[in-house]
Amino acid sequence: MSTTIALFGAGAMGSAVGRRLVESSAKVITFLEGRSAVTLERARAAGLVAAPLSAFAEADIILSIVPPAEAQKVADLIAPVLRDSGKKPPFVDLNAISPKTMEKLAAGFASTGAKVIDGSIIGGPPVPGKAGPVVCLSGDLAGEPDLLSRFGLKIRRVKGPVGAASALKMCYAGINKGITGLSAAMLLAAARSGASEALKVELAESQAEHLKRLRHSIPDMFPKAYRWVAEMEEIAEFLGSDDPAALIFKGMAGVFQTIADDRNGSHKLIATLEAMLDEGH
Amino acid sequence: MSTTIALFGAGAMGSAVGRRLVESSAKVITFLEGRSAVTLERARAAGLVAAPLSAFAEADIILSIVPPAEAQKVADLIAPVLRDSGKKPPFVDLNAISPKTMEKLAAGFASTGAKVIDGSIIGGPPVPGKAGPVVCLSGDLAGEPDLLSRFGLKIRRVKGPVGAASALKMCYAGINKGITGLSAAMLLAAARSGASEALKVELAESQAEHLKRLRHSIPDMFPKAYRWVAEMEEIAEFLGSDDPAALIFKGMAGVFQTIADDRNGSHKLIATLEAMLDEGH
Repeated sequence: MSTTIALFGAGAMGSAVGRRLVESSAKVITFLEGRSAVTLERARAAGLVAAPLSAFAEADIILSIVPPAEAQKVADLIAPVLRDSGKKPPFVDLNAISPKTMEKLAAGFASTGAKVIDGSIIGGPPVPGKAGPVVCLSGDLAGEPDLLSRFGLKIRRVKGPVGAASALKMCYAGINKGITGLSAAMLLAAARSGASEALKVELAESQAEHLKRLRHSIPDMFPKAYRWVAEMEEIAEFLGSDDPAALIFKGMAGVFQTIADDRNGSHKLIATLEAMLDEGH
Repeated sequence: MSTTIALFGAGAMGSAVGRRLVESSAKVITFLEGRSAVTLERARAAGLVAAPLSAFAEADIILSIVPPAEAQKVADLIAPVLRDSGKKPPFVDLNAISPKTMEKLAAGFASTGAKVIDGSIIGGPPVPGKAGPVVCLSGDLAGEPDLLSRFGLKIRRVKGPVGAASALKMCYAGINKGITGLSAAMLLAAARSGASEALKVELAESQAEHLKRLRHSIPDMFPKAYRWVAEMEEIAEFLGSDDPAALIFKGMAGVFQTIADDRNGSHKLIATLEAMLDEGH
């Protein structure tokens, strides 16, 4: 009997994960009502099959892969479907949300009879021929890790209840995306205070590895900045108002918002960063 | 004729810079009134000669190397001495202060007839046999860069007025110390949410270079954290309230304050970080 995986979210990450599952011979259904032509085409190219939400209850497992601000809404759409269904596939949230948001989301499934698994994805979308990203799972795990790894995903079991995989993601993303945001903010500050050339010389001399990393990570961030705003806010919430580091991520959300606005507007900041990171410059 | 360099500040950085100047045959005088026995001994060991503030006006150049919160106070002590003196050696502020603080500090010398040079030090204290740190200088430079490089310091001229060298330092320190603070905060968050082992595995796998860097930079930070609080506040002021990144550095000041308090208290956070960074662990 073939395995059906229901996937909510056919964005860059969702469709690439879906493609990998399809390539490993799973049937992957997805919900595309109201989505843009670009998304429809991306889903089609990935081999995903459009299906109504009611069909999700007939799948073997349900995955949610959406921007963090959408995670709760998706859960709110799926929970009633599972409540009304005889079959109760486990619901796996793979989004970059805080453990607290995750617990709240999971609570919405309490009366459905379906199991909720906390997950997170560390790394970029799957690329054909390459391993990764890592799909972290925590909670009441049974056959789900095996099922997903059978269909091509790299799985890491994170000890602990619902929330543990989300906590791991918050910490990892906080370091990784935080370094990118922090560095971009300081490069922009150097540029507006006339210190950009001197900073570039200093970084090349004493932080060559870091400068090399920024040459990739900062341009890679531009198209994702709008999505990282909510993720940084989730990290701030995860840290909690007693931790002064929460303020770091409130500021970081603002930095990514500024970049996202610039990308939709004058492109002045992006041009400044590109000039500073240009190796030939 | 021998060169006399007056040095205000015989802390770890000040005394090590002083030692390098002495080793390069400068006479270095310093002001030690009211300082601790530890500082007196450190100054003596570095070959610095105790002198009253009035003697500073007779030197060829005056350097200020103190924690950022002290920079203005030092300038306020030196300016009247230069105002009342016939000889007017240039005053070089080498502290991690914002360009605005630097400009305010420089304004205090306007009526003295003495020149103020903006400087900053990038890198750790000089180590015998090794080049560096880099002493950055900006403002109305004449013979000062040559004089200081003649006595063993590595000099970088930063184009621009008083404030440019300070801006460079703010940006560089913001990236460098910011990465350390950000990473320490997320390691602590992982530990308190039970994700420390999983984060360690993930960093070792996908961010091995960064983990290696943290194994040095985080323990190195513990004894300096109290000093970095004011430096992060200077960076926040430098960025200005219109820049969301200012919030990042307000949060960062809080993180370093927490570490500094822990070092004076229970050592619980420091022990947690040490366990997470332990290679054998």
